[in-house]
Amino acid sequence: MYNKNKGSKPVTGVKRTEISEVGEFGLIDRLTRNIRIKNPGTITGVGDDAAVIDPRENILLLSTDLLIEGVHFDLTYVPLKHLGYKAAVVNFSDIAAMNGVPKQITVSIAVSNRFSLEAIEELYSGILMACEKYNVDLVGGDTSSSVSGLFISVTVTGEAKKEEVVYRNGAKEGDLICVSGDLGGAYIGLLILEREKNVFRVDPNMQPELDGYQYVLSRQLKPEARVDIRALLHGLDIMPTAMIDISDGLASEILHICKRSSTGCRLFEEKIPIDEETRRISMEFKIIPSVSALSGGEDYELLFTIKQGDWEKIKDVPGISVIGHITGVSEGTKLVTGDGKLIPITAQGWDAMKK
Amino acid sequence: MYNKNKGSKPVTGVKRTEISEVGEFGLIDRLTRNIRIKNPGTITGVGDDAAVIDPRENILLLSTDLLIEGVHFDLTYVPLKHLGYKAAVVNFSDIAAMNGVPKQITVSIAVSNRFSLEAIEELYSGILMACEKYNVDLVGGDTSSSVSGLFISVTVTGEAKKEEVVYRNGAKEGDLICVSGDLGGAYIGLLILEREKNVFRVDPNMQPELDGYQYVLSRQLKPEARVDIRALLHGLDIMPTAMIDISDGLASEILHICKRSSTGCRLFEEKIPIDEETRRISMEFKIIPSVSALSGGEDYELLFTIKQGDWEKIKDVPGISVIGHITGVSEGTKLVTGDGKLIPITAQGWDAMKK
Repeated sequence: MYNKNKGSKPVTGVKRTEISEVGEFGLIDRLTRNIRIKNPGTITGVGDDAAVIDPRENILLLSTDLLIEGVHFDLTYVPLKHLGYKAAVVNFSDIAAMNGVPKQITVSIAVSNRFSLEAIEELYSGILMACEKYNVDLVGGDTSSSVSGLFISVTVTGEAKKEEVVYRNGAKEGDLICVSGDLGGAYIGLLILEREKNVFRVDPNMQPELDGYQYVLSRQLKPEARVDIRALLHGLDIMPTAMIDISDGLASEILHICKRSSTGCRLFEEKIPIDEETRRISMEFKIIPSVSALSGGEDYELLFTIKQGDWEKIKDVPGISVIGHITGVSEGTKLVTGDGKLIPITAQGWDAMKK
Repeated sequence: MYNKNKGSKPVTGVKRTEISEVGEFGLIDRLTRNIRIKNPGTITGVGDDAAVIDPRENILLLSTDLLIEGVHFDLTYVPLKHLGYKAAVVNFSDIAAMNGVPKQITVSIAVSNRFSLEAIEELYSGILMACEKYNVDLVGGDTSSSVSGLFISVTVTGEAKKEEVVYRNGAKEGDLICVSGDLGGAYIGLLILEREKNVFRVDPNMQPELDGYQYVLSRQLKPEARVDIRALLHGLDIMPTAMIDISDGLASEILHICKRSSTGCRLFEEKIPIDEETRRISMEFKIIPSVSALSGGEDYELLFTIKQGDWEKIKDVPGISVIGHITGVSEGTKLVTGDGKLIPITAQGWDAMKK
């Protein structure tokens, strides 16, 4: 993490420019002047009525995500630069989940007058850092004031060859269920941040205790999109039959695949990959680690199914875990627990509409 | 208008379902179940990590707009169905301004608990009505709660042949400046609505007096995108050299074209097309009608430049007005008033960031 513990508090000595001083066009000029177009398919970016994109022979993928203050993030512990980075990356993750390559984003923001020009520039520096790392072009957007809070709407395009696109609905009985990386860390990181926030509320002189929590905090504050999995599977000569990214928790995502594919599944609790730090802190919070993985969300790993015949190719690949298999729909969607019990999988994940 | 004076008040006798009762997935199911894909280029719409689009040999256009309660609209006089229609149409207008054809949109909304499921369905019915009329597919989006108010973020894609795309920066000295339709009406419509709102505040038993204001109210509440201009100009064998849609007022838009094209301009006040109703009510408000056109905005007509040699082809075309010409940059951007004075054009248009 490049900015840990800095929070979104104004940096002492840094000038505060009101956005109303520069107006909408002034703001757009400031936010877009450092943009450098990287992709040959991006013919025109910011500055006209629409961006102009040439996908050549490829299929175009299109996805969008909202991030809303007080619902999706809390600026008392999320630095604006991290927030910008994450806002971009969660969109790249949607493209990775289609087996595509992210190419362009548009970013729309609405900000209350609580935010200075410098604060919004900090947010954009995170967005542009993600664009730089993932070789994505920022090609447009919209800006507005808001009555209260910060709203971020990002839309991403991606490219893939038509025959390479992987949907949620292609899983077949007998397919193996695989997941990249490890799960549950982002949720545990959130619990740590919430705990420190509450400590800070009680005694504002307390320093946050974040040592020993680096991994889970980085999972929460600076997630990465698994755009590398596409090349990895291609190199193994494996074409996933279905794929989704894990934004709402493993349980919710496998249910999406099964519902859309009209199948059931068996997930083996003991096969779910969980990092040691995640496991340890989860137990500190008296949460069974697999529950953090199943219901936590925001890990942005990829969940995918492959043909049973690909087992030999993938079984020893580091960073990929085979965690179950697809069944007929009549067998239901079940978790096989460590002691061999079969329990129904239920989505307890994030719902931005529930209280 | 299909719904005038209805406002966004709950309709008596209609059930109110809280969004929290159905949750995010329930809401998405309700909003998307009536979607019917119309374009062969839309391979997959709602329901996966990303929409899948095949632009075939075309260039893809991409644009996005935010609409925020309390900044861009006031639900005390804008019916939700109109709002949805407008949110879609203003995006189609951006594609028309590139000389393209709108094809797909994504719609993201954040709503406070003040809004019922039925209210959001009303909003979407307006969006889908616009999609139906303009042959555009709704292919994705995101939904969330908000701490207060309604936020709408729409992203649109469009298609065009690469050589047909018209940018803002192609105007050349000597080109003629043209505009479709008439201007100023949407702004005057807004003034009427604001006036009636204030009357209503003073005496809630007053009925709004909207007779005689139909045209300007429809311009404000139910704008249309000039997607027809592309075919019209094609039929006349005219290729615009630059084009922009009029969202912020004629003054602001011509300045964009001149800035991006590195030119000046002469606009003739008397040539600016203004409807009789707009003119009459503008005078009632003691506003010079051309000021409504220059600074009002939201007309969503197209402003474009053509080669001088195309004059004969366009001079008698109904619904197109030649209102000036492009000059060298050193001659400045000037309005020629009715009495022959030259005054500098200044953008007094809408700025969502100013107070």
